[in-house]
Amino acid sequence: MTLTNAPHSYLVAPDPAAAHLTRPVSGTDHTGKSVDLNVVEERPLTIFLNAQEIVTAMTIGDYPAYLALGFLRNQGMLHADEEILRVDYDDELETVVVRTASQTTYEDKLKKKTRTSGCAVGTVFGDMMEGLADVTLPPHPVKTSDLYRLAAIINTTPSLYLEAGAIHGTVLCQGGNPLVYMEDVGRHNAVDKIAGWMLSEGATAADKTLYTTGRLTSEMVIKCALMGIPTLVSRSGFTAWGVEIAQQVGLTLIGRMRGQRFVCLSGEHRLIRDANLRDVPEEPRKSQRKGANG
Amino acid sequence: MTLTNAPHSYLVAPDPAAAHLTRPVSGTDHTGKSVDLNVVEERPLTIFLNAQEIVTAMTIGDYPAYLALGFLRNQGMLHADEEILRVDYDDELETVVVRTASQTTYEDKLKKKTRTSGCAVGTVFGDMMEGLADVTLPPHPVKTSDLYRLAAIINTTPSLYLEAGAIHGTVLCQGGNPLVYMEDVGRHNAVDKIAGWMLSEGATAADKTLYTTGRLTSEMVIKCALMGIPTLVSRSGFTAWGVEIAQQVGLTLIGRMRGQRFVCLSGEHRLIRDANLRDVPEEPRKSQRKGANG
Repeated sequence: MTLTNAPHSYLVAPDPAAAHLTRPVSGTDHTGKSVDLNVVEERPLTIFLNAQEIVTAMTIGDYPAYLALGFLRNQGMLHADEEILRVDYDDELETVVVRTASQTTYEDKLKKKTRTSGCAVGTVFGDMMEGLADVTLPPHPVKTSDLYRLAAIINTTPSLYLEAGAIHGTVLCQGGNPLVYMEDVGRHNAVDKIAGWMLSEGATAADKTLYTTGRLTSEMVIKCALMGIPTLVSRSGFTAWGVEIAQQVGLTLIGRMRGQRFVCLSGEHRLIRDANLRDVPEEPRKSQRKGANG
Repeated sequence: MTLTNAPHSYLVAPDPAAAHLTRPVSGTDHTGKSVDLNVVEERPLTIFLNAQEIVTAMTIGDYPAYLALGFLRNQGMLHADEEILRVDYDDELETVVVRTASQTTYEDKLKKKTRTSGCAVGTVFGDMMEGLADVTLPPHPVKTSDLYRLAAIINTTPSLYLEAGAIHGTVLCQGGNPLVYMEDVGRHNAVDKIAGWMLSEGATAADKTLYTTGRLTSEMVIKCALMGIPTLVSRSGFTAWGVEIAQQVGLTLIGRMRGQRFVCLSGEHRLIRDANLRDVPEEPRKSQRKGANG
């Protein structure tokens, strides 16, 4: 079993050398010595759905169209069968506008809600929970050898994290192969960019695995379930409600995956424990994500 | 110089044994063995300002009144001199209502904004940036011996992080003494609870330091500046915009503080480098925050 150095090509991989994603910053270290660091950018992006301003997200700025589509989809503002006419990104105005063929039902909802409560912010989470009632995830089997292979490939893939730190990554995978690797300052942006890519490409979800560096909170689990992906894996920890929702919707949930170790919180019966732990290396120190807390 | 085991008492310390903050969760580990874990809770809390629903935050659920006050203050929805009549928390409805003597100007703003754009979500960030224009932070000196003392005390303080992981901490400090240590699933909630405590207690900000486990993004730096705290320290990394804003408002910004190491990104001239690095221990493995990514 070869876990690392396997020939592998992503459909979308991080581009840590892209000039607009990082910036040189100077500081002094603990000994008083000047240090020059390459630091991730962060810029506002305001997302519109037709004429409706929805949110301003703080993002590294790559893939604004995927981010907008995925955000709107994951918030239940765009339905799966919505006809999308165009997505217009304006670099200078820092806006992206998603245009649909017909007025979306969300805009009606929003109008009604803003009439009664003045603002729709507080209702978004309720809408996401509502969407969950219709979700039945397919009972897709998961090989532990695939999980270890994914972690080994992802952790050694050149990325903004390895280059500059302070960033989260989310990777859409199939079996033991990572396909689409997105990074962003917010862990939810990285997931939303994956959702936008899937929507744009018409990708199937039932055979996929989502790997994330972020914690498995309720919102992360709900997003994965709404995307129809039956397996969610993280290097980080989890909240009680995240675990509870995963169990309710039949999501296979794996947390704290580092080196040989992981904890399966939901979907144990779908795990095929085919990996020989003696073949699994402890992860190299360089890929330990101590700098991305947040 | 004694860095650890110094007698120290917090004004507000984490209460990792509080029954409602964690829940036992069962899983299986990488060897197939059953494991019982204590996992942090996460529950929705809807914040109202008078009759206006503002937001639903996901929180561990302690200090709902501080969270509401601090959130509203940090978003510029409550001014420093606002007369607050009452804060009512309803455990069953999971709501907290902040009542002010007079209608706040934010409610007028919100009504106008919802009339023109239908929703106020996208405007919140702009409001925060607007507030920054009036901020001048006092040039408070910072001793490196105090920074090391803070890190040593905070990292060994019994906390939900050490107990259950997957959580962020923020600590209000004065010189080398941590005063108020808040934790939450969202790093911004922890900061907002500190802001709420300061507002309730009428605490001065000019001589304080804010220590956080989360990344130093633009929003974190803006919040610290709006709170009037001249020094911000983090174990984690930073974004280019976070650094830029800190330099603009005259905030002393310290990132990646672990063991002996740190990087000063802004305010170098205020650092008093009085610590002897040979006296500073590398941090114990148990206090390394590898599990709170996100």
